[in-house]
Amino acid sequence: MRVTPELARDLVATAHELADAARTATLQHFRSRDLTADTKETHRFDPVTEADRLSEAQMRAILARRRPADGILGEEYGAVCGSTGLTWVLDPIDGTRGYLSGTPTWGVLISVRDATGPIYGIIDQPYIGERFEGGLGRALVRGPLGEAPLAVRAPRALNEAILFSTFPEVGTEEEGAAFRRVARRARLVRYGMDCYAYALVAAGQIDLVIEAGLQAYDVQAPIAVIEAAGGIVTDWKGRPAPEGGRIIAAASPALHAEALQLLNG
Amino acid sequence: MRVTPELARDLVATAHELADAARTATLQHFRSRDLTADTKETHRFDPVTEADRLSEAQMRAILARRRPADGILGEEYGAVCGSTGLTWVLDPIDGTRGYLSGTPTWGVLISVRDATGPIYGIIDQPYIGERFEGGLGRALVRGPLGEAPLAVRAPRALNEAILFSTFPEVGTEEEGAAFRRVARRARLVRYGMDCYAYALVAAGQIDLVIEAGLQAYDVQAPIAVIEAAGGIVTDWKGRPAPEGGRIIAAASPALHAEALQLLNG
Repeated sequence: MRVTPELARDLVATAHELADAARTATLQHFRSRDLTADTKETHRFDPVTEADRLSEAQMRAILARRRPADGILGEEYGAVCGSTGLTWVLDPIDGTRGYLSGTPTWGVLISVRDATGPIYGIIDQPYIGERFEGGLGRALVRGPLGEAPLAVRAPRALNEAILFSTFPEVGTEEEGAAFRRVARRARLVRYGMDCYAYALVAAGQIDLVIEAGLQAYDVQAPIAVIEAAGGIVTDWKGRPAPEGGRIIAAASPALHAEALQLLNG
Repeated sequence: MRVTPELARDLVATAHELADAARTATLQHFRSRDLTADTKETHRFDPVTEADRLSEAQMRAILARRRPADGILGEEYGAVCGSTGLTWVLDPIDGTRGYLSGTPTWGVLISVRDATGPIYGIIDQPYIGERFEGGLGRALVRGPLGEAPLAVRAPRALNEAILFSTFPEVGTEEEGAAFRRVARRARLVRYGMDCYAYALVAAGQIDLVIEAGLQAYDVQAPIAVIEAAGGIVTDWKGRPAPEGGRIIAAASPALHAEALQLLNG
């Protein structure tokens, strides 16, 4: 859809208000001693679910006030249809296992999409205080070192590339085998970053992320941020992948093509 | 050796001055576009080595001024003997592959040891601005959420425990098999944290770290910090391991024993 400058400003401001609220909500339980309570308790307190729900509920309250006619798709509270052609896609904590372990690699994912896919997204890491955003003419990160533009790395071949995935056990047996065909050729393979890996592609630090089994709310903000930084995100067949599934994010078309050939070989 | 309160204060103040200098030095190249220069250049700029050396050289300059009679063991510039019975052990960037990839999981490791092993240590994550310290009566973290005491998690069995290691390929084939015997029984296994995993044990967020092939400068600061937080760090036979090698860090004696049995099974 056509986005006027006025609408763009409102969407960006709304997204930042959502991210601010989610930052406060998720940090309320992060690293708290609640997280380390004896897990054998009968009435087990699940701090991730608690933080997830609090965060998404607060974001929905902001949307109800600022953008009541837009649709919402959230991980915790499902889908609400809108009438504007725009839908907010929310993942209040992407990387719950990272959150549970105290690592600074989980994130809050916020994006807004039209019929064609995400048009703007934010990847926020509340503990570091770092926010990556892309779309609607923006591509920047604000964090501990101040503000910087986002731009993917210069193109390079797979044997010079850094590849990330969240777990070494990628998807099904078949998916894992496809991943390993790429991993064997890469210069360096690392794990454990959750959504932070996508931010590192947009920030020009790494070249590739390959994952399987993703949901729409896992992938839409990364798509917007990486595309705004000059990179590519598709499924393993090279098709647009706003609904998730098997995902590859690459810093350049040639590297994307090289990895796709191995994934499908 | 007997450490007077006055000496303890000086050692702690010196260690923090080292960590401050290393923080500035390492951030100078972290996430810089230098890092993303075309790696095919003939005169290849190696930003990790550059940052490593700058950081260690600055720490050595501080020690030459503040503690000229102490010994030094550093990753980049080797060993200097001292006459006080104290040796500073420095790893200016632990986790160079994490540094190179832009992740916030590498760290600066600083410790001071006597004949028995490390008596004080710092694990510093410059990008997050987070510093874990332990020994000489101290056990605390200062970071984005302010200051908090360090204390390991409440004891729990392996099937409720969170286990970390830097790479899924742990050491030799035999070492990898031993690691997997433990990993299969753990509740959750995660990778990719470099020295940050040891900080997470001390901060009460995870229960176990198991690694192989470590150097003295990789392990001495983690030993000091984790022991100050109430945890245990040994080799895979349960012996003190200030020289590195095969390392296990555990939040409780029972969990340590359970994991050792599987490592040696």
